[in-house]
Amino acid sequence: MKVLVINAGSSSLKYQFIDMDSETVLAKGLCERIGIGGHITHKTGDKVIEKDLEFPTHKEAFQAVVDCLTKGEGAVISDAKEISAIGHRVVQGGEAYSQSTLITDEVLQAAIDYSEIAPLHNPPIIVAIKACQEVFSKDVPMVAVFDTSFHQTMPEKAYMFGVPYEYYEKYHVRKYGYHGTSHKYVSERLAQILGKDPSELKIVTCHLGNGSSITAVDSGKSVDTSMGLTPLDGVLMGTRSGSVDPSAVTFLAEKEHMSIQEVNDMLNKRSGYLGVSGVTSDDRDLRAAALAGNHRAALAGEMQRYQIKKLVGAYAAAMGGLDAVIFTGGIGEHSADCRRDVCSNMEFFGIQLDEAKNAANNGDEELISTADSKVQVWVIPTNEELAIARDTKRIVEGLGK
Amino acid sequence: MKVLVINAGSSSLKYQFIDMDSETVLAKGLCERIGIGGHITHKTGDKVIEKDLEFPTHKEAFQAVVDCLTKGEGAVISDAKEISAIGHRVVQGGEAYSQSTLITDEVLQAAIDYSEIAPLHNPPIIVAIKACQEVFSKDVPMVAVFDTSFHQTMPEKAYMFGVPYEYYEKYHVRKYGYHGTSHKYVSERLAQILGKDPSELKIVTCHLGNGSSITAVDSGKSVDTSMGLTPLDGVLMGTRSGSVDPSAVTFLAEKEHMSIQEVNDMLNKRSGYLGVSGVTSDDRDLRAAALAGNHRAALAGEMQRYQIKKLVGAYAAAMGGLDAVIFTGGIGEHSADCRRDVCSNMEFFGIQLDEAKNAANNGDEELISTADSKVQVWVIPTNEELAIARDTKRIVEGLGK
Repeated sequence: MKVLVINAGSSSLKYQFIDMDSETVLAKGLCERIGIGGHITHKTGDKVIEKDLEFPTHKEAFQAVVDCLTKGEGAVISDAKEISAIGHRVVQGGEAYSQSTLITDEVLQAAIDYSEIAPLHNPPIIVAIKACQEVFSKDVPMVAVFDTSFHQTMPEKAYMFGVPYEYYEKYHVRKYGYHGTSHKYVSERLAQILGKDPSELKIVTCHLGNGSSITAVDSGKSVDTSMGLTPLDGVLMGTRSGSVDPSAVTFLAEKEHMSIQEVNDMLNKRSGYLGVSGVTSDDRDLRAAALAGNHRAALAGEMQRYQIKKLVGAYAAAMGGLDAVIFTGGIGEHSADCRRDVCSNMEFFGIQLDEAKNAANNGDEELISTADSKVQVWVIPTNEELAIARDTKRIVEGLGK
Repeated sequence: MKVLVINAGSSSLKYQFIDMDSETVLAKGLCERIGIGGHITHKTGDKVIEKDLEFPTHKEAFQAVVDCLTKGEGAVISDAKEISAIGHRVVQGGEAYSQSTLITDEVLQAAIDYSEIAPLHNPPIIVAIKACQEVFSKDVPMVAVFDTSFHQTMPEKAYMFGVPYEYYEKYHVRKYGYHGTSHKYVSERLAQILGKDPSELKIVTCHLGNGSSITAVDSGKSVDTSMGLTPLDGVLMGTRSGSVDPSAVTFLAEKEHMSIQEVNDMLNKRSGYLGVSGVTSDDRDLRAAALAGNHRAALAGEMQRYQIKKLVGAYAAAMGGLDAVIFTGGIGEHSADCRRDVCSNMEFFGIQLDEAKNAANNGDEELISTADSKVQVWVIPTNEELAIARDTKRIVEGLGK
């Protein structure tokens, strides 16, 4: 079975085409500037094909993906019929979807309904799914894999906010959590590496990238996570504030005469690394600026690492124990400094980093704690596309296709 | 030396009159309905004197306090001149006041300036201080003891929010923390009990009452605390939400068409126990409702205890260790259930509660962990008035008075 995995944004479309018999990526790429131009980058093996095209809508972008997969020097199949199934990343699945699911009219309607609580994320995905349905035959099953599903096991005490209960009833305002596919993938991968059943493990998974979230995975289940209603809450990120005293939000709205939209933009797009440092939202640039003596750049990094460290402690308390900490995502896999600072002075928790191993690790799957560290610390590269493809395969096989 | 301690609100005035040679309370009381009527309750020994009076302003209330202290059956001194000094609780001391200080025109102006970031708390205190200055001779020194001072030792990474840095520069938006007098008092008291220097101890102090805050006290210094710019942030409280995903704040403001003032009111007055349970903001009533089977009342309690538990873990990580947890404040001193739930399943942290001792403790200063618990758990009744009186005495003595 060959599965096409789609991760759509409002003007972009990332894809991977995976042979699920061998779990190898046959091709992957990115369509950009949808609606405002059009450009596709398609990679297979060592070949990189780039084309300027016209993508008035996502439909033309999907058509270009099919063309690249089936024609010319980037082709990996001879006919679109060899695409057995398509897996779509959907950000918000609400309380209804605690599992990946075959996309039906009902599922699509639910995703539309959940746009209310994910106005930035769900609408472009729905547009993309509809465009995809136009391009592909109805015989190609499509599966929705939700960022929120893995976190649906959180207990009520972890997901409810302390605001009037009626808002939960009226608007479903609660913590949903994101990056679920990644947190699930790396925590299951660790259980596999250790040859243990997930039920034996209490893990804190740190998915750190442009967006960052930390999750407490107890017995294979998410019991708490740092992102909330939207992917804004939690730790400091590239341009997102993370957690902020709610009274500071209203204070700033008042002082700066900001509309709600302006407050959201400030918190989502002008905060985080960028807002604190004043120079960059990029982790590598931030570290370079800090090394060059920029105090605010150093502060932004310190804040993030300190917040992650506190969440490791908080989630150890939530789970009543800790067996492992996993670092993943762009920063988690590639910033040895971040891992060092999060794990420093954590001997009380039984965490003892192997400084040399950590410093040398740049994204390899590896144990980076010392042999006698009671809590293991791992770098495990995430692979959300493979996780989506696996779920897609499992569900489609369940249909008897 | 006899010190009068004042804790003023917009329509109320709490006082204690303390003989500092023996540190005994000579009299205490409460003026209520200032500006809308007037009532004083004055207690000394077993005597309780209650009077309906007219308090158009705080000045008349102060006059009534002096009258009660010096005349009639509640009198404990014969002349107002025996009041050696007055200590005022001031909520917000900003970044300028990391210590208690003699009230001068400059200090009063600073408290006025800080009203911008403490609009609910500082203005009535300033009104009260000015009224107090009108009633008492200029020879009576007055001292301001700030709720925020103890937390001024927090490192930058702990007190900065992840929003654009300019807001810190323009408006001093940052975490200040509150209940500092209480956190300082109970942490110093524990060092005294244990016969240790504060520099030897890493303590999490849990001040739990109508307002609740948790503080990490490392080597006698506050290094992090749960309240922020205002006393809204942190754990769920009687009517305050505690921490809420900032995107949930803007989401609700938009959906409910709330003004900033309405959002603040919702978060400060209609949330917490009251908002989640729908029935009460009082801890005892909440526990009774939960016992009677009210699911939302039980949930509100669970949320608060779970959040406290996570902060104990977070602050152990922040300090790189944990020697003791202290419970204080109305709930901390009197709710054995709360203490039990916070400390349950915390063996990983070296916390082992003595269930019987905990269940029997109703506000006594006592070690409530087992003899072999690596981390000690204590109930230590707070005494903010005594702490204010001590600071007042120390500062006034420093003046040579």
